[in-house]
Parts: sequence; C-alpha cells; structure tokens
Amino acid sequence: MSLNKYSQSSSSSSSSDSIRDKKVFAKLKLSGDYPRKNAELLSAQYGINVLLVGVALMLAIAQQKASVEEKDLLSFTTSLMILQLIWMIWYILVRRSQGKTRTERDVNATTCWIRGGLTLLAVLSLIMDALKIGYYVGYRLCLSEVYVVYPVTHVVHTIAQVHFLWFHIKDVIKSFETFERFGVMHAVFTNLILWCNGVMSETEHFMNNHIRQTSGVEFQNITTEEPALQCNCTTTTCALFSRSFTYLFPFNIEYHIFVSALLFVMWKNIGRTIDISSNRKSLVTKTQGLTLGPILGLLALVSTIGILVVYITRLPGPLEVHLSAVSMFYIYGIVLLVVMCSAGALGLLIYRANHMPLDASKNPSRQLDTELLFGSALGSWFMSWCSIVSVLSSKSDPPYRWTNLIYSLLIILEKYIQNLFIIESLYRQQESLEKADPELPTNPEVFSVTSSLPPLNGIDNQAYESPGEGSSSMENEQEENGQVYGSQRKQSNVPLPVDIHAAEPLNMKRLVLKNIAVFLLLCNISLWILPAFGCRPQYDNGLEEATFGFSRWTTVLNFAIPLSLFYRMHSVASLFEVFRRV
Amino acid sequence: MSLNKYSQSSSSSSSSDSIRDKKVFAKLKLSGDYPRKNAELLSAQYGINVLLVGVALMLAIAQQKASVEEKDLLSFTTSLMILQLIWMIWYILVRRSQGKTRTERDVNATTCWIRGGLTLLAVLSLIMDALKIGYYVGYRLCLSEVYVVYPVTHVVHTIAQVHFLWFHIKDVIKSFETFERFGVMHAVFTNLILWCNGVMSETEHFMNNHIRQTSGVEFQNITTEEPALQCNCTTTTCALFSRSFTYLFPFNIEYHIFVSALLFVMWKNIGRTIDISSNRKSLVTKTQGLTLGPILGLLALVSTIGILVVYITRLPGPLEVHLSAVSMFYIYGIVLLVVMCSAGALGLLIYRANHMPLDASKNPSRQLDTELLFGSALGSWFMSWCSIVSVLSSKSDPPYRWTNLIYSLLIILEKYIQNLFIIESLYRQQESLEKADPELPTNPEVFSVTSSLPPLNGIDNQAYESPGEGSSSMENEQEENGQVYGSQRKQSNVPLPVDIHAAEPLNMKRLVLKNIAVFLLLCNISLWILPAFGCRPQYDNGLEEATFGFSRWTTVLNFAIPLSLFYRMHSVASLFEVFRRV
Repeated sequence: MSLNKYSQSSSSSSSSDSIRDKKVFAKLKLSGDYPRKNAELLSAQYGINVLLVGVALMLAIAQQKASVEEKDLLSFTTSLMILQLIWMIWYILVRRSQGKTRTERDVNATTCWIRGGLTLLAVLSLIMDALKIGYYVGYRLCLSEVYVVYPVTHVVHTIAQVHFLWFHIKDVIKSFETFERFGVMHAVFTNLILWCNGVMSETEHFMNNHIRQTSGVEFQNITTEEPALQCNCTTTTCALFSRSFTYLFPFNIEYHIFVSALLFVMWKNIGRTIDISSNRKSLVTKTQGLTLGPILGLLALVSTIGILVVYITRLPGPLEVHLSAVSMFYIYGIVLLVVMCSAGALGLLIYRANHMPLDASKNPSRQLDTELLFGSALGSWFMSWCSIVSVLSSKSDPPYRWTNLIYSLLIILEKYIQNLFIIESLYRQQESLEKADPELPTNPEVFSVTSSLPPLNGIDNQAYESPGEGSSSMENEQEENGQVYGSQRKQSNVPLPVDIHAAEPLNMKRLVLKNIAVFLLLCNISLWILPAFGCRPQYDNGLEEATFGFSRWTTVLNFAIPLSLFYRMHSVASLFEVFRRV
Repeated sequence: MSLNKYSQSSSSSSSSDSIRDKKVFAKLKLSGDYPRKNAELLSAQYGINVLLVGVALMLAIAQQKASVEEKDLLSFTTSLMILQLIWMIWYILVRRSQGKTRTERDVNATTCWIRGGLTLLAVLSLIMDALKIGYYVGYRLCLSEVYVVYPVTHVVHTIAQVHFLWFHIKDVIKSFETFERFGVMHAVFTNLILWCNGVMSETEHFMNNHIRQTSGVEFQNITTEEPALQCNCTTTTCALFSRSFTYLFPFNIEYHIFVSALLFVMWKNIGRTIDISSNRKSLVTKTQGLTLGPILGLLALVSTIGILVVYITRLPGPLEVHLSAVSMFYIYGIVLLVVMCSAGALGLLIYRANHMPLDASKNPSRQLDTELLFGSALGSWFMSWCSIVSVLSSKSDPPYRWTNLIYSLLIILEKYIQNLFIIESLYRQQESLEKADPELPTNPEVFSVTSSLPPLNGIDNQAYESPGEGSSSMENEQEENGQVYGSQRKQSNVPLPVDIHAAEPLNMKRLVLKNIAVFLLLCNISLWILPAFGCRPQYDNGLEEATFGFSRWTTVLNFAIPLSLFYRMHSVASLFEVFRRV
C-alpha cells in the first residue's frame, strides 16, 4: 500500500508533493524513524574515527622526542572511558525505569563460561591497576596526575563493564535505537583503543627487554625505561610493582579485545527481531570417554611451560646456547603442529564421512566468530610467509634455517585446517538433539550457555514493547545483512522424533571429535602462552631481520604477534564451544 | 525427513552407523556435495595466502641490498597470471561445450559503462606494457628476460581478462562449484597482487622524485633510479619510454583493483539461486534540467588541473614559493570540500524530507560497494587524524598550519557525509519505476546496465541445469551470509500501478539530487587527479614528518594514499550509479 503511495506521489507534479510527502512521512514515522542502514553507518563511522584518533596519538608517541606525550593519550582514553561509564549508567537506569516490561534477549550472544572467563581476566586487570596506582604513589612527585587518574578510572570502568556484561550484554535494544547504537559503538571502540594501548605498552616493554638483552647490558636497573628517569622512588616497592604489572599485561589485553567482540555482537543485535520459540535445550557437558585428548593436551601444556622456561633462561647466554634455544623451540613447535594438523584433519575426515547439512540460521555471534578466526589468522600467516621468503633467499645458514621453514609451513597449514574444523563444527546441525527435559528450570541465566547453537532457542523473553515497532524491525531485518527467518524456521520447528536415549551413549565418532576438540584447545593455550610470556623466536633468530631490515621486521611483528595471540585465545573459546556441541 | 534420519542414526549404536551413514551420504550426494561454507573458506584462505606471499616478497624487495630481487617477484606474478589464463581458457571452453544450455546471469553484477571504463583502462595498461617492452629492448643486454616475459604475459592476460569481463563476469556458476571457487579466487587475488605491485612501483617512483627534489639534485639523469644502472641504452628512446610509462601507472592501478572487485562479486555469486522474474527495466539516463551541477563540477575540474600544474611547477622552487604552493593547495581544498559537504548534506536533507523504506533485497554487488566505500575511506581518515594530531601538537608554525587543520577536518566530514549519501541513494527504493516499454529489446547485454537496482530484474536467463541442484543451492543460500528471497520478493512482485507518465517530468527534488550527484562525481574526479599525478602536500608540508618521523609517516602515506585514490575512483563509479537512479 505505502509503495503505491510513493509511485503516485512522485508521479504527480512537484507542487502537490509536499502535502503528500507529509502524509507519507507521518505514516512512516509510526513504523520506523531513521533508516536502519544509515543509523548503522553513522555509528560505525563514528567508532572508526574514534579509533583512528587513538592510533594516530599512539603513532605520534612512538616517535622519539615526540611533541605528543603519553599523558595526552591517557587523557584521551580516560575521557573515552568516562563517556562510556556515563552511557552505561544511563542505559542501566533506563532499563530499570522500564521495570516490568522485560527486554528481549539473544541467548546466542554469550555464554556463562565466557562471562566467567572475562570476569577472571577483569580481576587480573584490576590487580594490574592496583599495582599501577602503587607505582604512581612511589613516583608521585614527578609524575603527572594523569598517571593516577587513568588507573582509577580504569578500575571503575572495569567493574561497571563486568556488571554490564553479566546483566545487559544479551539485551536486544528496541528503544532509542539510533542513540544506543552510538553508545554501544563507543563502548566497542573504547575497548579496542584500550586493547591497542595495552598492545603498545606490552610491545614497548618487550622491545626494551630485547634490546637490553642483545646489547648485553642485561642486569641494568629496571627503572631506566620508565618515564620517571630522573626521579627517585619514595617507596621501596617501585621496581617490584613495575616488574609485576608487566606480567599482567597479556590478561588485560585479552580482556579488552574479548569485551569489544561481545559488545559488537550487541550492536549487531540492536533492533533485531528474533523468532519466538519456546524450545529450550541445555547442553550438559559430557566428559565420559575423554582420555587421550586431555592427556595429550596436558602433556603439550606441561612441556610448553618447560620449553618456555628453558628458552627464556638460555636465550641471553653465549651464541651457541642462544642458537640451541632457538633450534629447540622450532623442533618442539614442529612436533606439536604436526600432531595438531593430524588431529584437525582427522576431525574433518570424520565430518566428510558423516555428511550433514549446515545450519543456516541467523546468529551474529557465530558469524563474528568465523570472521574473527579468519581475520586474526592473517597476522601469523603473513609472519610465516615472511619467514619462508627469508629462509629461501637467505645467504646465511644458521642451524635452525630449515626447521624454521618447516615450522612456518606447518603454522600456515595448521591454521588453515583448524579454521575449517572449527567453523564446520559450529555450523553443522546438531547431530542428536537432547531430549527436552521438563524438569529443567526455565531461568535463562543458568542454562543459556549455548552461544553457537541453532536458534531453536532463539530468544528467551518475548515481551514486545509494541507490535508496530516489532513489525518495522522485521522489515529492517530483511536488509542486505539481515536474514529472513521464516522459511528456515519452518524446518526447525517441526518436532523431531528424538529417541529418549539419543544422547546417552556417546558414539565413537563424537567421542573422537570431543577428544580432538579438547586436545586442540589445550594446544592452543600452549601456543598462546609461548609468545604471551616472551618466547618470540622471530625476534631472536636473525634470519628475517637480515632479509627485511630491523625496523620493517619489527613493524611486521608488532602488528602480527598481537593478532596471533588473539587468534589463539579466540580459538580456545571457539574450541570449547565445539567441545560442547559435538 | 533426512533430519529425522540423522537423529535416529546417531542414536543407534556405532556398529550400525557406517551402513546408515552410507545411505544418508548417498542420499545427500544428490542434493549437494561439499558444504558451501567450507568450500568458500577453503578458497578464501587460499587466496589470502597467495596475496600474503606477494606482499612478503614486496616487503623483502623494499629492503636495500635485498636478498630477494625484483625479478623473483615478477616471476611469481607472471606464473600467477599464467595460471589465471589457463583457468580462464578452461572456463570458456567448458561454457562453450555446454552450448545451448545458457548459464544463469546476475544482471546486478556489473554494468555496460563500468565494463566500458575498464576496457579503456585496460587499453592504457596495454600501452604501458608496450612502453615497458620498448624499454626492455633498449636495455636488453643487461636486463633479465623476466623483464620482457612479464609485460608480454601481462598483455595476453589483460586481453583475455577484458574478454572474460564482457562475456562471463555475470555468470552464476553452478557446475564444478568448489573448483570454480578456487579459480575465481585465484583471479581476484592475482589482480590484487598486480594492484599492490603497481602501487609499489608508483610509490617508489614518486619517492625517488620526491627525494631528488628535496635534495636539490633536480635535473639528474632519469635512468639513475632504474635497475640498469651500469647499462647503456641501445636505442635513443629509453628515457622517453621510462618517463612515459610512469604517467600510465595510475590507470593500470585502478584497472586491477576494479577488476578484482568485479571478480569478487562473481565469487560471491557462485552457487547462488536468484529468484526468477521477467521484469526488465531500462534506465534511460535523463539529462534534462541538469545545469548547475555540471557547470560547478566542470569549474572544479578545470581549476583542479590549474592548481595541479601550478603546484607541481612551484614546488621545487625556493622556500617561500614552496610554502605558498602548499598554502594554495589547502585553501583550494577547503573551498572545494565545503561546497561538497554542503551538496551532500543537502542531498541527505532531501532524503529526510522524503521518507522512503530502504530496499532490502540481496545484491552482493551493492553490498560490496558499501563495504568498499567504508573500508577505503579508512586510509584518508587515518591520514587526516594524523595531520590533526600533528598540527595541534606541533611547535613549528608554518603559514599553512591552521588551513591544514581545517582541510583535514573537512576531508573527514566530507567522506562521512558522502558515504551516507551514496549508500542511502543506492539502498532507497526507486521512487518511480519507469513504465515497462514493450518495444525494448530483450537482449540483456544492451540493457542490463542497472548494477544497483532492486532485483525486480534479478536474473536474465533461467535455464536451470537440474532441478535437484537448484533446490540444494537454495538451501545453501540460506546461510549466514545468504538471504532468503521468498518473503521479500512477494512485495516486489506485486505489480505496481505505475503512471504511464511517471518518469517524464523530473520533479524538483530529483532534479536537485541529480545535480548533486553530477557535481560530486566531478569533484571526486578532481580529488583523484590531484594525488594521482603527484600533488601530495602530505609529503611536502613537513608538519607531520616532524611529528611522526620520516619513515613512519611515509609508511602511513604509502598505505593511505593508494586507499584514498581507490576511494575517489570508487565514489565516481557509485555516484554515476546514484545519478542514474535518482
């Protein structure tokens, strides 16, 4: 009807346009105000620009004798955090005032254990902040106040954000949509800037260590790299503080990037209308028959920690010891990666033997998982190809030359296979749907731990604010990025004749898949630990540095290693999901 | 039915699994072989890795006294081109052998005028190749054969690819899907590598010029920067050749990136099933009432060329002249950008006054347009934020300091507004659908010039290879990235009561929008010309260089300027589309 109206109104002469326009406009106002596509673009462009300001500031600080100082960047991030705090308080108050009319929630948005893990990371970040405040107290005479305002704001920000994660991250926002889009986008990019900031501090710290080691002045005073060079610490614990908080950097970094991914899913959910279905399913994590996977995985984890300790202690030694440490790392890496590749390939073979259509329902969280796995693999793929180019073209011939080549090829292959395995696992339809247990409580907070399940359980609360608004959102939903659920849904809603004992005996294939998932999970933790705590042979082997030059190669690494670390952490989260699903 | 089969087969004991699996497997083989999501991921990962190899090689070459030489990179790209040639020949032969069963085509995939423009760019690329071959002939005694094999292969590749663009780019591939995905992906990334290679050569050339200018040794022999340093040219035209082909770089660069975007759309279309609708619509480009837009636009274009000439001639002069040239550029830029911002904002206001639902149908080409506009704007946003940071923190005070600040802010604002305007224009439903003229010929090659129209005219040939395959693709289509068309389509298929004279009198609003589109189009051409032909004040003003350091700032520019150039070219294509639509 309204479409007809358009073609008529535009075909008439322009003089009568305005009156008709007003009528159409008033009519449309009821069903949807600002076009969704535009509102998304507006807020996305805002967010990207905030991030770019932050990155430009960081780039300026990295310059020696910079006209921009670190405190400028800290003031900028502090004000962003305060703005986010104000928005979160506003949001929570508005929700409270709405009272009984509960908002819709997307149960796929996150899971209990992800939120639990984030809370743990947040606690470690809080300890880091406490150490930073303690460090400031020691140097308070010569440090700007920004250095204490920043950690204090960060403490408040972290606590508020964890609260927000627990109680609001699954909300599907339906009111003040355009404004809320800005709020959520601001939160996403504030966390991304905090991530970048963390990465920069961590890299700076690592590079200082590295340069100190290679230049042989190993046991220098720890405070020389700090800004308060001409300053004396007024307490006895400054060195201890600054040494301690650097160990907490990796956790703080992972915390921020994970939170921004969750908030991004929340942003994608704004204005979504999800099909209502009362099906509820609880995945009770089965652990029977799990032996080989966990055992091999723990073995990998323990030997990784051994390798890390040996590597770090032997690296600063004489040249021969140094070379042997690097060789040892590559040989260990090759063994681990060969086993991981085989495990992943076995999993894919099992899937090929057991053909199953992929689940095609909408799930922004799962789609983001896929994109992040793919995107963050880029970092280490690029690093590996650089290594391969430099090994093949190098004129020098260190003992680890060919092991480095094999290691790099395996890194590429392993991520290739692992991505295929994880993504196919997340997209396959559940093989056997567990029996619907009538005794299960309906509280979504306890059992909505199913972040990548098909949307049989799409939504857990269905109090629409207004029917009119609902229908307009459905229309918006059918945009380029949105999906139409109807036809897909019909298939899912057909009650399946599920055998009561379906889920009980884990069949052989599922058992193998579960073992593979656990093994890969523990291996990915191992491969996160190594670079996160300083085992980065790419800096130490000298081959790539000779091919690409020191500054270019460090630039590549400073970009690739954080991505690679994120890839490992993200794989761990995804593999845990896979483990629960198969 | 098949879903029930799964739950039963998995619930039974594992011993009887294999037999049932085979049955299910055989059954599924009919409706779809390898899961689409996996096939996409496999080929995407392959493509990305090919690109990364190329980038790693380029990075290695950029190093002085590199162990990797330029001829290695050229051999690599040559072999990629040959591989793409083989695939294209294979593809064309297979299509020929299928003979009468015409393949489906996606009319939205590209337009006549885009292909025409690309053919023009290809011709300029061919001239560049001819000049390169001539250059090789001059230096043949001391240059590796790769330097002649590469341009010759490029000539063949370009001709074959233009043929492919004209006759096959719209194909919706339905056979050998997994293999074809690899083929198309290979073609996408081969073109991307050729783009990167072009960007690198262009940047190298510009940097050499820049360094020569700033170091004052201006009228040095042109051949000193070439690889054949100790070599004498055996013909008299070497310097002329090498000077000429550098002017053709920008066209070659744009050619490759545009082709890779078109091929990417082809890749997204593989296996798609598009709803059949015989509606056909020709957009006859209306030009009546177009005065102010073209006049202002041409004025901008002419003055831009004037500014370019003055800038380039005055830049190498003494300091005062140099400074005045930079100032002149910024003042001109500010004037142009203010007018562009106003025009874009006016367009958006008109849209706000004339509310209209957005078109939500699937159109991979349009979605890619949106993403590319957003993504390629990042480059110049980042550059501008860096400028702003450096202006605000700078201790020096050149005459153009504050004009630089205003110029940078306006660049950000202008892209912000222009993106909103273009994307809303492309997504708005057609205000008045032109009358269906029965006299129009049905040949799609002539009238399928509607790349971003709603899929009323979704497909122009509907010879399905097999009904079974069609239905399986429909199922695949409903994936995370795919859309379901059914419900959306119902709306579009309702015959609209279109007034016969609907399109005839361009009403006032449409006239203004058309003028805005033309004006912005010409302005974007102007803003492409300036940096493409060497007017890059970011290198010459010295402000950012002081803040970020020479190497960091050139790295930023080498990344941002190619993106910015692509943004302008892509805006021109999109604005032409907007001009035809409004």
